[in-house]
Amino acid sequence: MNFASDNVYGVHPRILEAVVAANQPLTDVPYGHDDGAQACEAALSRVFETPVRAFLVLNGSMANSLALSAMSPPFGGIFCHEGAHIQTDECNGPELFTGGAKLLTLPGEGNRITPQAIERRLRHFVHGEHGARPSVVSITQATELGTVYTVDEISALGATARAHGMRLHMDGARFANALVSLGCTPAEMTWKAGVDALSFGGTKNGGMILEAVVFFDPALAEDFLFRRKRAGQLLSKGRYLSAQLLAYLHDGLWLDNARQANALAQALSRGLALVPGVRIAQPTQANEVFALMPVALCGVLQALGAVFHEWPVDGIDAGMTHVRFVTSWATPMADVSRLIALAQQASARGVDGDD
Amino acid sequence: MNFASDNVYGVHPRILEAVVAANQPLTDVPYGHDDGAQACEAALSRVFETPVRAFLVLNGSMANSLALSAMSPPFGGIFCHEGAHIQTDECNGPELFTGGAKLLTLPGEGNRITPQAIERRLRHFVHGEHGARPSVVSITQATELGTVYTVDEISALGATARAHGMRLHMDGARFANALVSLGCTPAEMTWKAGVDALSFGGTKNGGMILEAVVFFDPALAEDFLFRRKRAGQLLSKGRYLSAQLLAYLHDGLWLDNARQANALAQALSRGLALVPGVRIAQPTQANEVFALMPVALCGVLQALGAVFHEWPVDGIDAGMTHVRFVTSWATPMADVSRLIALAQQASARGVDGDD
Amino acid sequence: MNFASDNVYGVHPRILEAVVAANQPLTDVPYGHDDGAQACEAALSRVFETPVRAFLVLNGSMANSLALSAMSPPFGGIFCHEGAHIQTDECNGPELFTGGAKLLTLPGEGNRITPQAIERRLRHFVHGEHGARPSVVSITQATELGTVYTVDEISALGATARAHGMRLHMDGARFANALVSLGCTPAEMTWKAGVDALSFGGTKNGGMILEAVVFFDPALAEDFLFRRKRAGQLLSKGRYLSAQLLAYLHDGLWLDNARQANALAQALSRGLALVPGVRIAQPTQANEVFALMPVALCGVLQALGAVFHEWPVDGIDAGMTHVRFVTSWATPMADVSRLIALAQQASARGVDGDD
Amino acid sequence: MNFASDNVYGVHPRILEAVVAANQPLTDVPYGHDDGAQACEAALSRVFETPVRAFLVLNGSMANSLALSAMSPPFGGIFCHEGAHIQTDECNGPELFTGGAKLLTLPGEGNRITPQAIERRLRHFVHGEHGARPSVVSITQATELGTVYTVDEISALGATARAHGMRLHMDGARFANALVSLGCTPAEMTWKAGVDALSFGGTKNGGMILEAVVFFDPALAEDFLFRRKRAGQLLSKGRYLSAQLLAYLHDGLWLDNARQANALAQALSRGLALVPGVRIAQPTQANEVFALMPVALCGVLQALGAVFHEWPVDGIDAGMTHVRFVTSWATPMADVSRLIALAQQASARGVDGDD
Repeated sequence: MNFASDNVYGVHPRILEAVVAANQPLTDVPYGHDDGAQACEAALSRVFETPVRAFLVLNGSMANSLALSAMSPPFGGIFCHEGAHIQTDECNGPELFTGGAKLLTLPGEGNRITPQAIERRLRHFVHGEHGARPSVVSITQATELGTVYTVDEISALGATARAHGMRLHMDGARFANALVSLGCTPAEMTWKAGVDALSFGGTKNGGMILEAVVFFDPALAEDFLFRRKRAGQLLSKGRYLSAQLLAYLHDGLWLDNARQANALAQALSRGLALVPGVRIAQPTQANEVFALMPVALCGVLQALGAVFHEWPVDGIDAGMTHVRFVTSWATPMADVSRLIALAQQASARGVDGDD
Repeated sequence: MNFASDNVYGVHPRILEAVVAANQPLTDVPYGHDDGAQACEAALSRVFETPVRAFLVLNGSMANSLALSAMSPPFGGIFCHEGAHIQTDECNGPELFTGGAKLLTLPGEGNRITPQAIERRLRHFVHGEHGARPSVVSITQATELGTVYTVDEISALGATARAHGMRLHMDGARFANALVSLGCTPAEMTWKAGVDALSFGGTKNGGMILEAVVFFDPALAEDFLFRRKRAGQLLSKGRYLSAQLLAYLHDGLWLDNARQANALAQALSRGLALVPGVRIAQPTQANEVFALMPVALCGVLQALGAVFHEWPVDGIDAGMTHVRFVTSWATPMADVSRLIALAQQASARGVDGDD
Repeated sequence: MNFASDNVYGVHPRILEAVVAANQPLTDVPYGHDDGAQACEAALSRVFETPVRAFLVLNGSMANSLALSAMSPPFGGIFCHEGAHIQTDECNGPELFTGGAKLLTLPGEGNRITPQAIERRLRHFVHGEHGARPSVVSITQATELGTVYTVDEISALGATARAHGMRLHMDGARFANALVSLGCTPAEMTWKAGVDALSFGGTKNGGMILEAVVFFDPALAEDFLFRRKRAGQLLSKGRYLSAQLLAYLHDGLWLDNARQANALAQALSRGLALVPGVRIAQPTQANEVFALMPVALCGVLQALGAVFHEWPVDGIDAGMTHVRFVTSWATPMADVSRLIALAQQASARGVDGDD
Repeated sequence: MNFASDNVYGVHPRILEAVVAANQPLTDVPYGHDDGAQACEAALSRVFETPVRAFLVLNGSMANSLALSAMSPPFGGIFCHEGAHIQTDECNGPELFTGGAKLLTLPGEGNRITPQAIERRLRHFVHGEHGARPSVVSITQATELGTVYTVDEISALGATARAHGMRLHMDGARFANALVSLGCTPAEMTWKAGVDALSFGGTKNGGMILEAVVFFDPALAEDFLFRRKRAGQLLSKGRYLSAQLLAYLHDGLWLDNARQANALAQALSRGLALVPGVRIAQPTQANEVFALMPVALCGVLQALGAVFHEWPVDGIDAGMTHVRFVTSWATPMADVSRLIALAQQASARGVDGDD
């Protein structure tokens, strides 16, 4: 019963097979100039229905940092949610790779930012060169709280960014989960809504090392080979990366995996919602379930072998805790059912916080 | 009637004389190794009643950035108020000179942070190396809103910092104004309350270029000569800097200047408080007066020649604006009186926002 | 006939099998805290006959940059050969990750630096904080020209470094090739000779992504988890990395692979040396052969399907070129024989530069 | 008898008077937006006979670092002489402010680089993004060895830079000394010869803090206000800087000062050349004299009160040392005469190294 994260699960068999197959032929061109790398760019261009520039990198944090470094000068300011992964979980990587840009954090329901919040903050930027120069709006889709921006919300943020001379970046560590949740096309969720650059993540959704930076504006890609190399994100044996992305996109594997993970999250969310003392804290729109539950219940579940994280938020009632469950393409449905059953039993035994 | 900032006023005559006098003898040792530089360290040690390490730098922003760079690793997190000068007015300098440390901003009344706010935020740092490593608490004394931390408040922040393995930094761009406001000793307001490093500012209080980084913990000063040189904060003709600091500290000039500026602010604050439609927005504890007033009144005053800044804050009623008046050692008392009189007359004529 | 680099060859079957096997069990602890990561540290401690701190990273450039960042302050100076990989082939990565340290390049035969060259350069560092502070000596073993430092040479460099308060770093991208060439123990070639930190490379020698930073002084490792995360060198699914290193060290695979590559290089070197017009330019001590040959001969070989790089050096006679051949554990012996035969035939036909 | 540097001398009286005069009127616009700052740009445009963008900064090192940061990306390479001030005396400042660009050092007579040396080095840049991207050629005029590039030499370097997509930067810490030495116009020595950006120094030639970055290509200036502020090079009370530059340029003061310094250097050079055992090591073309002399003679002169630096160079005969004498606008002619006389007397007494 491991719901700690989608990244605790291994690699999808079809992707692993592709890695093994990449061991032939005997030799290949190194350092990102293999045929596979070009095939990846072509495949992503088909996915997005427009010619994109795409570069394989080694993890999602770096997809973000490098995308941002192409969009913001070192004296720039990057608007994001105060709970954004780039702010809370990348150990100052964005600051390092942008050369010192500042993350300007905003509050917002469900880890979503709004044009209004950006506008309000911009009113404080009246000092010319004394403050950071607003340069990028960065959003996470799906968010770190498992919610999803609608296409209209993204479009509104894109318009706000452009109106102030800024660019729009999307952290798509769980891009596929958001996409199948909305039921729109990749194009609609990105460049048609004003997204200039995307961190396209696949590691959490069945890959081993499966991340790409996708630029919809080719001007942003101009120096990217230098940026990637300097940042230590270029592998000599790149064929093992490109093979993964090609297998991932092939025959809809990426969408199937995401649908499966989302369906499990829905099942888990519905089941937990019925447990006395438990409250689903966020709309379950992708593959993450956030819930408030009694500390005692949380402890019982963990003692019974359920693996998941407490997720600190402010303003929780005493005796309650906020927890996160993440499902993946590989999470056994039996684990979901068992977790729900255990929670119901424990709650019935009186660990629902009311005693 | 210039209340735009204390830095719009020139240099105190005694400091200017010291600069002129520094032109003799014909030659001096360059690059910060002049006798004056050592005399500055000795003078500050007397002021603080303990041996300090002190280094002259070229402006207050750099005093902050360099002090922070000695206190935080590049992967560190620096707690400060969301309206702190290091966050809003130094164009990512702290990010540059620390090598990419992250400013962790906190809300707080009167631009003051509290131990509680720090503790609350620290609860989110549960990820090991995934988030920034909390390294420094930085406070501004007096704050950017003209308020002053009490010695007890500073001590509590110092204790909180130490309890979490962090250091305490004080941005003292208006150190003297805060000091005379509290009526305590420099030692009581700094190292005795747990301050490890201080940006000691004098430019706003009568200097030309009069800033120093003061370390109460000598270990922090170990590499500082390299840090200052690398950062471009070392002058070849350093004698013109050390002369300023020595004149500033001589015979209480720094305290006299601050008392005069604070007294003018008190007079202005009391006068404006009586103007219908005007509300003093922050306690006037140093040399800055913040007020809410009708937009129309603000416009009239500016049209009549009063120079001051609107200071954006959220949540103001329509038709009202938030403004800042700064007084200095050199601000004519007549200007203060005239501003009050003009505001009263304008208000009486009906530009008080009620029409 | 691909001699372009050892990294154009794929992954050794036993390492690939280990990657596949790592897909079980279903879940594992992410972000470098898998059991495999600890097993790697233990295995390397056995290899080096001393407790080491070891961290998996994603490529050799980053092993270098991150090791250096732990050894040098941003205002430091890093002595290395003017042809060192960190100077010529890492696109300013060392500058980025050290926060701006300066590489102080030295000449030297066979890309080897000497204590004398370091001492000579240090004589220019008389300015206190005006120059970089000498902090690290970095050597490559085997060098970029396929030569190998003897243990005595390393010891002498270690002594020189220590005498000046510096640390000694070894770039071991081809560590195994150098080791089997010298016939000494890993301990003798590293910490016993004064090496403080090692970039332990295995990608070129049969791995897919197989690189580690090894610290012999645990103090250098203190903040390394933060450094690695910030630098984007931490994978979520770390088990696929640790599996590689364990397979690599198991049952001497790493040494067998290196012996095979070195033997092929010896065969190639001996064969080419007999070709009229060709001169072996460096002693062949690891798995690289550098030769001077007529431009015409070089063109013929490439036209016949031999893949290798011209390697620019100064001072070559007109009509001649300097070329590099790299052999790997997987290079077919038949390719070596064929290349020699083709060179002999071409030379006999008169493309030896003498016509 | 202080020949340690031109910066050991104080401020020219006319510049000091201008600083004092800048204390009126009572208030001025802060942060570089004073009328004086604009007047400086206009005055420099007249000096250079073309509209320039000019920004006051606080020292010559930062003029260099900030100019370079506008000309090179962080992944760029900056060609300069191995003895250039940016390489040897700015403590990694260029690396910091460019975000990690690499200085690519070249040898060359008299600290001058040549197009040939650049071309030779560029031949090694065959790796695409693996090496730094060549971005800037930086020269010092006059050089750190007191020599001067001719206009033709500068033009040739400008052409080489452009041919390879690079920019040309001139470190003009001793710009005036070089200018009067050549007898050409400022335009001829800069933009007409292909210089894109200039560090225009005046501190060594009579200023207190008198440095500007001058851009001949306005595109390079686009973000400079942000760069300067972020780097901590913006003063609040900027009027005291602009007053210095205006006084410096007024009525030819800058040229008169430079002529005087150069004339003293000529006198010193001619006098020392006649002392047995002393050899002038570089052509004396500006205000610095480099000489080889017996160690014993050097010690005698220092014991007699002459202040100057030994200047390490390689390949000196045993018993000899390489020394530097710098003259300034304020160096007493009597000191020059006395130094020569003392050297002659000491030499006559037998401390010429032949004993």
